[in-house]
Amino acid sequence: MNSTNVPTYQRTNVPLVVVQKYGGTSVAGVERIRAVAKRVAAQAREGDRVAVVVSAMAGETDRLIKLGREFTAEPMSRELDLLMATGEQTSVALLSLALRELGIETETFLGFQAGIVTDENHGRARIERIDAEPVRTALESGKVAVVAGFQGATKQGAITTIGRGGSDTSAVALAAAIGADRCEIFTDVDGVHTADPRIVPGARLLPKITYEEMMELADAGAKVLHSRCVEIAARYRMPLVVRSSFTDGEGTWVVPEEEHMEGAIVSGITCNTGEAKVAIRRVPDRAGVTAAIFAPIAKAGINVDLIIQNVSEDGYTDLTFTAPKEDLRRAMTLAENAAREVAAGRVEAAGDIAKISVVGLGMRSHAGVAHRMFEALAKEGIAIQMIGTSEIKVSIVIDIKYAELAVRVLHEAFGLAA
Amino acid sequence: MNSTNVPTYQRTNVPLVVVQKYGGTSVAGVERIRAVAKRVAAQAREGDRVAVVVSAMAGETDRLIKLGREFTAEPMSRELDLLMATGEQTSVALLSLALRELGIETETFLGFQAGIVTDENHGRARIERIDAEPVRTALESGKVAVVAGFQGATKQGAITTIGRGGSDTSAVALAAAIGADRCEIFTDVDGVHTADPRIVPGARLLPKITYEEMMELADAGAKVLHSRCVEIAARYRMPLVVRSSFTDGEGTWVVPEEEHMEGAIVSGITCNTGEAKVAIRRVPDRAGVTAAIFAPIAKAGINVDLIIQNVSEDGYTDLTFTAPKEDLRRAMTLAENAAREVAAGRVEAAGDIAKISVVGLGMRSHAGVAHRMFEALAKEGIAIQMIGTSEIKVSIVIDIKYAELAVRVLHEAFGLAA
Repeated sequence: MNSTNVPTYQRTNVPLVVVQKYGGTSVAGVERIRAVAKRVAAQAREGDRVAVVVSAMAGETDRLIKLGREFTAEPMSRELDLLMATGEQTSVALLSLALRELGIETETFLGFQAGIVTDENHGRARIERIDAEPVRTALESGKVAVVAGFQGATKQGAITTIGRGGSDTSAVALAAAIGADRCEIFTDVDGVHTADPRIVPGARLLPKITYEEMMELADAGAKVLHSRCVEIAARYRMPLVVRSSFTDGEGTWVVPEEEHMEGAIVSGITCNTGEAKVAIRRVPDRAGVTAAIFAPIAKAGINVDLIIQNVSEDGYTDLTFTAPKEDLRRAMTLAENAAREVAAGRVEAAGDIAKISVVGLGMRSHAGVAHRMFEALAKEGIAIQMIGTSEIKVSIVIDIKYAELAVRVLHEAFGLAA
Repeated sequence: MNSTNVPTYQRTNVPLVVVQKYGGTSVAGVERIRAVAKRVAAQAREGDRVAVVVSAMAGETDRLIKLGREFTAEPMSRELDLLMATGEQTSVALLSLALRELGIETETFLGFQAGIVTDENHGRARIERIDAEPVRTALESGKVAVVAGFQGATKQGAITTIGRGGSDTSAVALAAAIGADRCEIFTDVDGVHTADPRIVPGARLLPKITYEEMMELADAGAKVLHSRCVEIAARYRMPLVVRSSFTDGEGTWVVPEEEHMEGAIVSGITCNTGEAKVAIRRVPDRAGVTAAIFAPIAKAGINVDLIIQNVSEDGYTDLTFTAPKEDLRRAMTLAENAAREVAAGRVEAAGDIAKISVVGLGMRSHAGVAHRMFEALAKEGIAIQMIGTSEIKVSIVIDIKYAELAVRVLHEAFGLAA
């Protein structure tokens, strides 16, 4: 078995072990499933050992959630997981049938059959381990393994789903567990671009990007890959490629940093309009107050991103944070309770914001990225409401009406166009 | 635990262990699932221990089969089972949610989670055993067990479905395995009638019927229960009741013979228009020929019912049998091959037939049932094409256009009206 960490399309005599993952739009309908089967069959006929991880057909998970909502307002439960798991089960059955019609021998695996063991957090379970023996055995006997993404089971055997980015995460975790040579994520875009091509027509496809950059882009709102999936790929140094299931493009390779020496200062720009901001006024500036405010929010599983605390004036400060819009109501309630407890002032929320992020490994060694960013936006009269930075990312929050303009201006300012 | 074999609605202080099964029409839609939940909750609140077995929502299994048919012409496979099993999985999840909204604690079980182990005949697997411990434990801890009907898994863990009458069979087998006091089959009719009330408006609901009669009625085309289910009930002497899920009627109890001393000569009349007849002309009348003809048909899993062989003339005989219409094409091909091999004559088929059966335990001791049957039909000028008898059943095949008339005439002739 070849253990290339360097992505390659040159065929060797040694068969590769490949995990391919196809998302919901790639399997949405009979014809698309047939097309996926053809692509998988082609890879298998080259002599490679292929495990295919599939999502539910696009729209199916939403349909099932809506059905469950007829009976309960609970956001997640053992029953909803059982219900949602039927989506991938259907895809697995249909893709396996389509492959067999092409003369390819297959073996099907639901999450639990593929040995995917998770914790008990229904609706957003974490994979604890994968007992990959059954899948490995199927591959070694020359079969294509068709595996349900997005799902697993607890040690006690209850079916779980693993939340956002689920099938990507299943695929890369399975790839790591079986010691695959690479994991290919097939989706409805060509790969990772310097910015969303629908916003910036001149956006360029990135042939390579590092795990770290990809994680920051994903966290910042690039929808092409989920950061959990990239995190696992990075941990196991699993070569990951994001490609279109509708074209033959080579896509974007996500690779370790040392294979990406030519790293640009800025690799990409993302725009996230799915968050809202919550501001707590006149928060007493003393030890433990911030912790007291965020503890219940974290406990509720609300994903807080930017947190800004201004310098204190007369013993009080304003505290602002962003959170997903769908969690806004819960976040508000929790923030109001916490504010009362610490004797802070009123709580305000705004949903009409956009978070624009600039990501690049080169930032670490090049000063002035933030400055160039602010200057470009100022020239267009775009006011910055919040700023947050990480080692390789600068994020700003602006009025949502300037979102697209800001992305285009920054794409130009950092010379990202083709 | 009460081990009544005598059906009773009188409450005792001892909690009963009850398996309730709800068919596809009973769970077809959100409102109906809520109604089922209310009924189950009421039983549980009386202190009884309830396991509920559910089918897929009406129409769902057909929808899934149609989807599978887009990819394969195979009648059954591991994949089709995987696909079909999503139907009951959905019902289990939704009913469990509906019960929990009523404050009832539940535990959900897919077929394999309920320990239902089957053989490997996908699409029509037979239950080999049930490791009922998990369901029993759930009931003992006061939970309602919500169990997927129609499905199980092989020893190796592949999901299987158990074919026609599947959920009824699951329910009664589970009832036997957990040592339930009774098994209640909820369906869209009030119980078992002396004839189909849509054909005979005066048909009477039977309050009791024996296992044996029920099996013969089921085999003869009464759709209310499948004979496999009754067979298991009989073997384990499990009291079985068929009731409407839409009314509060007491339904029909299916009981051992000794509890049904008043047995009528004839209990019911059925009409089956789902079969076709196949005639093989000029079959050489020598040992082994009949076996040679039917061996491949049996091997193909085609359910042959009536077989008629006329007395031989000049060393040749005509051989006629009935088989389900959906298997007619395969049966014809197999019969033609066999006919060639044994040097028989041509093979003819006809689908425009009806099989009318008269069933009753009293037949064993009362001669003349067949005679009264033929006389009644002759009076209406209905010609009999084939006749077959068992210990407690007489079946005849007639032209399909007389089917309803024949049922009404016989219902009258045997004095079955209310």
